[in-house]
Amino acid sequence: MDRVERKTNGKRPAMSILVLGGDGYCGWPTALHLSDAGHEVVIVDDFSRRQIDEELGTRSLTPITSSKERLEAWNEATGRTISLEVGDLLDWEFLSGVVSRYEPDAVVHFAEQRSAPYSMIDRRHAVYTQHNNVIGTLNVLFALQEFAPDCHLVKLGTMGEYGTPNIDIEEGFIDIEHNGRRDRLPFPKQPGSFYHLTKVHDSHNIAFACKIWGLRATDLNQGVVYGTVTPQTERDPRLLNRFDYDGVFGTALNRFCIEAAAGHALTVYGRGGQTRGFLDIRDTVRCIELAILNPPERSEYRVFNQFTEQFTVGELAELVVDAAATLGIAARIEHLPNPRMEAEEHYYNAKHTRLLDLGLEPHYLSESLLDSLLNIALEHRDRVDLDVIAPRVRWRAEKPRLVEMRMAA
Amino acid sequence: MDRVERKTNGKRPAMSILVLGGDGYCGWPTALHLSDAGHEVVIVDDFSRRQIDEELGTRSLTPITSSKERLEAWNEATGRTISLEVGDLLDWEFLSGVVSRYEPDAVVHFAEQRSAPYSMIDRRHAVYTQHNNVIGTLNVLFALQEFAPDCHLVKLGTMGEYGTPNIDIEEGFIDIEHNGRRDRLPFPKQPGSFYHLTKVHDSHNIAFACKIWGLRATDLNQGVVYGTVTPQTERDPRLLNRFDYDGVFGTALNRFCIEAAAGHALTVYGRGGQTRGFLDIRDTVRCIELAILNPPERSEYRVFNQFTEQFTVGELAELVVDAAATLGIAARIEHLPNPRMEAEEHYYNAKHTRLLDLGLEPHYLSESLLDSLLNIALEHRDRVDLDVIAPRVRWRAEKPRLVEMRMAA
Repeated sequence: MDRVERKTNGKRPAMSILVLGGDGYCGWPTALHLSDAGHEVVIVDDFSRRQIDEELGTRSLTPITSSKERLEAWNEATGRTISLEVGDLLDWEFLSGVVSRYEPDAVVHFAEQRSAPYSMIDRRHAVYTQHNNVIGTLNVLFALQEFAPDCHLVKLGTMGEYGTPNIDIEEGFIDIEHNGRRDRLPFPKQPGSFYHLTKVHDSHNIAFACKIWGLRATDLNQGVVYGTVTPQTERDPRLLNRFDYDGVFGTALNRFCIEAAAGHALTVYGRGGQTRGFLDIRDTVRCIELAILNPPERSEYRVFNQFTEQFTVGELAELVVDAAATLGIAARIEHLPNPRMEAEEHYYNAKHTRLLDLGLEPHYLSESLLDSLLNIALEHRDRVDLDVIAPRVRWRAEKPRLVEMRMAA
Repeated sequence: MDRVERKTNGKRPAMSILVLGGDGYCGWPTALHLSDAGHEVVIVDDFSRRQIDEELGTRSLTPITSSKERLEAWNEATGRTISLEVGDLLDWEFLSGVVSRYEPDAVVHFAEQRSAPYSMIDRRHAVYTQHNNVIGTLNVLFALQEFAPDCHLVKLGTMGEYGTPNIDIEEGFIDIEHNGRRDRLPFPKQPGSFYHLTKVHDSHNIAFACKIWGLRATDLNQGVVYGTVTPQTERDPRLLNRFDYDGVFGTALNRFCIEAAAGHALTVYGRGGQTRGFLDIRDTVRCIELAILNPPERSEYRVFNQFTEQFTVGELAELVVDAAATLGIAARIEHLPNPRMEAEEHYYNAKHTRLLDLGLEPHYLSESLLDSLLNIALEHRDRVDLDVIAPRVRWRAEKPRLVEMRMAA
């Protein structure tokens, strides 16, 4: 009888799941979703994301509560308990203690610095990002090998690992015929920031660990996530998820909605022909669950491309302008000089069938979702700080630096 | 008038060249070769390789002298001066000071932990290797961007980045046709140790830095180096190069020669059908020089496969047995259980034309070279410690660890 069966209480086997980075934008709703589904969830976080808000002088548009309040609210709302372990993955004594104590069935790993612009501020931030992400994940691999070798690692990668090649993007691997011979090889990677590079480094390290130690891992190359609400975060105002709009952590669409609500121009970088994969945060949490419920075999390293639709950044801005108009808001688009180094017109066709094959029913981008996002943004627009919206980090700068953040307020 | 022309004294323009890791097995003869060719050479080293010998209880077969003695001997033998800067690439204050002070025309970067088995000892050694190599190189990139943006980075990679795919290995990039579209993309990487992984991570980081900052870099994916002598190291006994034979730092061929001389069986891991690219250390130093003399354009990241011949490990062992026989030594081969995870019979055809196109005239492996290596090994055989020859680190071990090194002596 394996451990999973042993824990079964009802129809569905409950699992012990660590959510590394479970206080963050994707981690928090994932922890709630998995707890709601009956699993024993432990959040592992060092609150570095909240600390970075202090550093940058930014904050979530939505007034998120402390971790303590959040967890109490969840317990009050559902009767379920999510445990919390506070610490850093770079701290081996801490991490190995957590993994050996909980012997998880699955570890969901969101605990990385996830902003491309943040990683491009300067040398110190690039080194922080690569050290934190790569060595943190290396520690996770060693902890699993030593204390939970059967555990399934569900690791968040990014679609940005692939860059924008002129061929179709496959899910992790590609069959190559070359000079009359064939092999199935890792898909070539062309990441576009020191942050995106860390995800490529992680992918190589994880694939190797699966091969030599027989670990099992799912690498989820996620697209750009939009939305902030899930059925679980709606149960109590104290369960609110974060909603970023600043030039460093705010991503397209979410940022556009808040800009529209705040009367700020929608900040499209360059021509806006950059095509990316996008998904609703309600699909993020479901994708994680689907991966967990359908684990790979031992020694298997598999890659799913985790997004549901492709858009150009310009198309998204237009959609937000239209949705804003129905709410009586006259939003406008401003094309800013692109702070990044990226193709602004390019071929893009990325496969994303493996999660659909496991049963994902996507929430496609709809007018009602845009309405809802705009309304949340309107509700909190008194919290918007217009000074932090403009892109403040340039890829191409001779000496990359954070441009002075605060203008005369 | 550019800086290089300004420094010209004779027919050949002298360059200012930093050799990072210039005290090591490849770095030392490279520094001598470049100094001999008239360049202003600065060795940057923190002597971590000598420290690791202390940690492992190993030492070079050849009695190498201290860095101070070496540099004095070079000055006495040639009248030329090689400068020395002692410090760690992880120390930004040190590194940025060195780069800004010398404003090098080229930086040759050997300064990485270069043993695959060492990186596989345990978590601590894996983390040390990835942190040291990846962050050290990241610091080099930032130092060049800030203080020497026109400088040519010549970085040592490894043929081990490619692994053993079932298709021909190209030099860094491959033209892929897929679903009717084409692109030239980075060659997919399948490295086989935490050390080899660092070289893959470096390659991705360097390619990105060239793209965004306009740096210029040559990534030399070097094969397994053999030999120990160059025309420069022969000028004085105090200029001896190191010659490793232990199970952690000793590589095939060099190790086989010393094993034969010491009356130890030639340690072939597994069946010995592993095919790799090899080169003579006299070609290593010449390849570095050719890369320096033919720099890439700004923004260019190029890859050369740096080896001259392919052999299977078993073939090399047979060659050493035959050469030993001519010296009256009855050497024998012992097939040990392979401590690594690697294919022992596989397709292997790696391109290596770009350095030949620049004028490399290879020293192919010859009986006289094997004679010379065996004679050096015989000369120093009283220094051989038989206890450190066996492979002591296993890739597959549930808890990888360094097996107790010293048996009852």
